[in-house]
Amino acid sequence: MIIIGELINSSRKNIKLAVENKDVAYIQEIAKKQEAAGANYIDVNAGTRVHDEIEVLSWLVKIVQEVVSVPLCIDSPNPLAIDAALKLHKGQALVNSITAEKDRYDQLLPIILDNNACIVALCMDETGMPETAQQRIDVANRLADGLLGAGIKPEDIFFDPLVKPLSVDVNFGNEVLDTIETLRKQYPDINITSGLSNISFGLPNRSDINQAFLVMCMTKGMNSAIIDPLDERMMSLLVSAETALGKDKFCMKYLKYQRAKTNK
Amino acid sequence: MIIIGELINSSRKNIKLAVENKDVAYIQEIAKKQEAAGANYIDVNAGTRVHDEIEVLSWLVKIVQEVVSVPLCIDSPNPLAIDAALKLHKGQALVNSITAEKDRYDQLLPIILDNNACIVALCMDETGMPETAQQRIDVANRLADGLLGAGIKPEDIFFDPLVKPLSVDVNFGNEVLDTIETLRKQYPDINITSGLSNISFGLPNRSDINQAFLVMCMTKGMNSAIIDPLDERMMSLLVSAETALGKDKFCMKYLKYQRAKTNK
Repeated sequence: MIIIGELINSSRKNIKLAVENKDVAYIQEIAKKQEAAGANYIDVNAGTRVHDEIEVLSWLVKIVQEVVSVPLCIDSPNPLAIDAALKLHKGQALVNSITAEKDRYDQLLPIILDNNACIVALCMDETGMPETAQQRIDVANRLADGLLGAGIKPEDIFFDPLVKPLSVDVNFGNEVLDTIETLRKQYPDINITSGLSNISFGLPNRSDINQAFLVMCMTKGMNSAIIDPLDERMMSLLVSAETALGKDKFCMKYLKYQRAKTNK
Repeated sequence: MIIIGELINSSRKNIKLAVENKDVAYIQEIAKKQEAAGANYIDVNAGTRVHDEIEVLSWLVKIVQEVVSVPLCIDSPNPLAIDAALKLHKGQALVNSITAEKDRYDQLLPIILDNNACIVALCMDETGMPETAQQRIDVANRLADGLLGAGIKPEDIFFDPLVKPLSVDVNFGNEVLDTIETLRKQYPDINITSGLSNISFGLPNRSDINQAFLVMCMTKGMNSAIIDPLDERMMSLLVSAETALGKDKFCMKYLKYQRAKTNK
């Protein structure tokens, strides 16, 4: 599993404050903890900073890369903010995200290519958020045609099927699961990731649903997740599911994880 | 999900003692707690009582049925013990289990038919425990041909794919998942159940693996499980997974479960 640590996001109260106070040490600490907990990418998102997103995002890239060795996930819908952040980023970043919306796609693609970045491809286009699995698959197919055609390697692409709340329609989980199953068969080498917590929006005790849904998506072929790697319960189920899916030779990763937990 | 509460088993230390002491109240309490926690069947197993299994199993049926309204799962490889227990059982019991081993099959089938019992069909035959999904599916196909041919209704049959430890072969989870996926497609109306805890045999912190594997099996179409319904973590993930699989209209079951937990 490719784990994208989601905690450095200015929509979170403690990060919002740390950004306002230019509290470098606090943000660096959160970054280091996520790396130590197993994050393969550290997400940075300054989306709530409407007037200075470009400056704040670039600042986050700079201070986080000072203390971690894993690459960052540059998380913004704004091509200008992404471009500025990528220019500062050392190594191959992941960008979250491109969509099949024509303007966004046309603006972002050259930036991705110029910087040799990996890219999250959200399964949506001008018609808005998808409802069914088939709508998601159609958009994903168009995105894959475009991105692969432009020379991006399949392993540098991450589909995101777009998770919507069960509280709106109890079938929204199945639409995502069916999407993952089909995309995994169509594109064995393209990654599939997702922010999962939307699934439980509007329900009580959200972590149970989020955790169950993570395992369900992994069972269908999702190989990446945008999560809080400091959530031990979530991480333990993730490591367990990888092992039970046969992706952990001799259960070595599972044993190492449990040993580290015991020694904490 | 059809939940089979596994706690009343003489191989468990506290039940072993209660059986030796004829502690009716203790066993009845465990039975009532499992029913209250959502068990659809209460399993009774006296398999460690080599010399008096027939008497003890019959005694368990009698005292448990005094206090619960759900049917029992008569759990024994011994056709004589099963026959005696079924004669005492009120309502339609579930029997765990028949296999494709010729002697066991031929002895047990008429007992099942005479008592109109539901039956767990273990995916094994004379050649022993299966290794691959295909071996399990072949045995399941033969068992289904025989049981359906004898007039047993599909909804009265429960396949058990037989879970083996990941610590022996890390691919043993996938073999079970593939079995469930195929059997679900072949037999939409036959139940699929399993004792899951074997998956984690030999590994530390077994509950994480067991819980992840439960959700994975449900994702592939398993609709029953032999578990400890008093394990709140397991039950919460089970209810969450049912909801996320779209089997819980308007999330009502999930909301009711969380409300009951809060009010405890």
